[in-house]
Amino acid sequence: MNNEIPMRAEDRFVDRLRALLPPADAVLLGVGDDAAILRGNPADAVATTDLLVEGIDFLPGEDPERLGRRAVSVSLSDIAAMGARPRWFLLSIALPSPLGEDFALALCRGAWVRGREHGAALAGGDLSRGPCVFVSVAMGGQLESAPLKRSGAQAGDLLYVSGATGRAAAGLALALEAGRDKGLSESHANELLAAYRDPEPRVALGLVLGTQRLARAAIDVSDGLGADATRLARASGVRAVLERNRLPLAPALAAFAESRGVDPLPLILGGGDDYEILFAAPESAAKQLAALPSEVPISRIGFFEAGSGAVLRDDSGDREIDNLGHDHLEAAR
Amino acid sequence: MNNEIPMRAEDRFVDRLRALLPPADAVLLGVGDDAAILRGNPADAVATTDLLVEGIDFLPGEDPERLGRRAVSVSLSDIAAMGARPRWFLLSIALPSPLGEDFALALCRGAWVRGREHGAALAGGDLSRGPCVFVSVAMGGQLESAPLKRSGAQAGDLLYVSGATGRAAAGLALALEAGRDKGLSESHANELLAAYRDPEPRVALGLVLGTQRLARAAIDVSDGLGADATRLARASGVRAVLERNRLPLAPALAAFAESRGVDPLPLILGGGDDYEILFAAPESAAKQLAALPSEVPISRIGFFEAGSGAVLRDDSGDREIDNLGHDHLEAAR
Repeated sequence: MNNEIPMRAEDRFVDRLRALLPPADAVLLGVGDDAAILRGNPADAVATTDLLVEGIDFLPGEDPERLGRRAVSVSLSDIAAMGARPRWFLLSIALPSPLGEDFALALCRGAWVRGREHGAALAGGDLSRGPCVFVSVAMGGQLESAPLKRSGAQAGDLLYVSGATGRAAAGLALALEAGRDKGLSESHANELLAAYRDPEPRVALGLVLGTQRLARAAIDVSDGLGADATRLARASGVRAVLERNRLPLAPALAAFAESRGVDPLPLILGGGDDYEILFAAPESAAKQLAALPSEVPISRIGFFEAGSGAVLRDDSGDREIDNLGHDHLEAAR
Repeated sequence: MNNEIPMRAEDRFVDRLRALLPPADAVLLGVGDDAAILRGNPADAVATTDLLVEGIDFLPGEDPERLGRRAVSVSLSDIAAMGARPRWFLLSIALPSPLGEDFALALCRGAWVRGREHGAALAGGDLSRGPCVFVSVAMGGQLESAPLKRSGAQAGDLLYVSGATGRAAAGLALALEAGRDKGLSESHANELLAAYRDPEPRVALGLVLGTQRLARAAIDVSDGLGADATRLARASGVRAVLERNRLPLAPALAAFAESRGVDPLPLILGGGDDYEILFAAPESAAKQLAALPSEVPISRIGFFEAGSGAVLRDDSGDREIDNLGHDHLEAAR
């Protein structure tokens, strides 16, 4: 190393970042060269990428460490929904001039901590200026079983979801209200805010579903339960039936809905940003699924039948639910 | 497939994109699931990511197909500089509302055509709204030899560069002038514009350098020859000496400089966006390098010696050249 030559800010940033990063088994050469070097692996791999834009996918002024954490969680959720084990990720950041090096470093720190919790090492990235904050994560994982594609559901299969959807959308509403108390307890409010800001990717569940062959198809619920159930059904060529009385309602979401005098159902079906796993399981797997440890809560919410689309079924009949939720391209028109 | 259910715009876009993409050996499952599935490979891999922001890394109003092509070329250049073979890439796009689906699809088309030319298949991506166009590529490749890291150069090694640097910076200047003719021939102008808009990644050269063990260290020249020579020297713990009279001057760049009455040297050393490969070779490789086919032009421009930093050497002495070129983080302050 050389002290005579003044270092470029970009290189100084890379040095500061490298000092943070411990060695990782999957990454033979990490941040600081033209590309990362990843250990070869004869097992098939998965790779996904997600882009978060300030003001669209997260609120302006978001804390950088939390933002880095969330960006990585979004990709972890995709890897989880394939039933794969996360291994490495690349992180690109664009940011406006005034935010500078410390903001970028805090974002990287949040990202690598979150990745490490689930076995994914920060292997490299890129940095640029931009008119607002952009964060792009590309993540790779390895398959330890057949992948959980969207296309494997069969008529007669049962439909399950992890956790409870709708909490993140309520959390976003709370964040937008910025503290105006409407009679929600602090613990409920915190739970909902955390569901939005710091979602818990279902990595352990995805691995169990894959390696124990408990699921035939899966999708990560990011655009709303109704929209993603429709995608799962469409890819599999069957109809998904969600039973109204089986949909899990988180107590915090119930309290939120009651405090505002609204129906929680639209949030449950169309809220978005849930990062739960929705999956199809053969009936023969029901017993094993019921016996899974409670750390990975799942609910049976319906089944698949011959037909197409996704419907919510109750005593009054069926209602199509594909048009709920967030459509990135419609929003972009 | 189902015709009763109206498809979400995002899913329709994915369907249109999938229709474009031929099967690829490295990609077992491409666009359209939560993650791509990549064929396992016991060889070590490389992975890199680059992001391009409108108004920073490319000019506003850029043609989407050319932009997709360029974004992929930037990552191909990183893979090339590691001496690896490109295999797959992920593509994320953010775009303002009015541009819509056709713009995104044209960008994808340019990207996959460019990737295919060098063996990299489009495996997946993400799409979001944004205040400007933002393109992020993550690319993976496989190593067929020891990687060309930045850190392997030794005192006594020779310094080579592919092509001729400075043309892209001249091309950017021309694009900003938007057609005001200053006495440059059309063919020279077109060559310079193409160097900026559609750089040629040196994938074949990188593979030759790696598999024939002709290079000990390499870096892709993206921020200017001076800055990247300094990085190569720093990573290797030696000094890079660039000999003034050996620097290649492209005839088109010479004509550009003459037409404007400027010295081409600052463009050659600090222009940026060249996407050439700068590499260190042992003296014993000089003969083989001189015999490489002319499709991959290279020039010997200097050598390494004990010391630090990178200098331009001529009859009047040495001049440090690290502070030329583009610094993404300084620019972001």
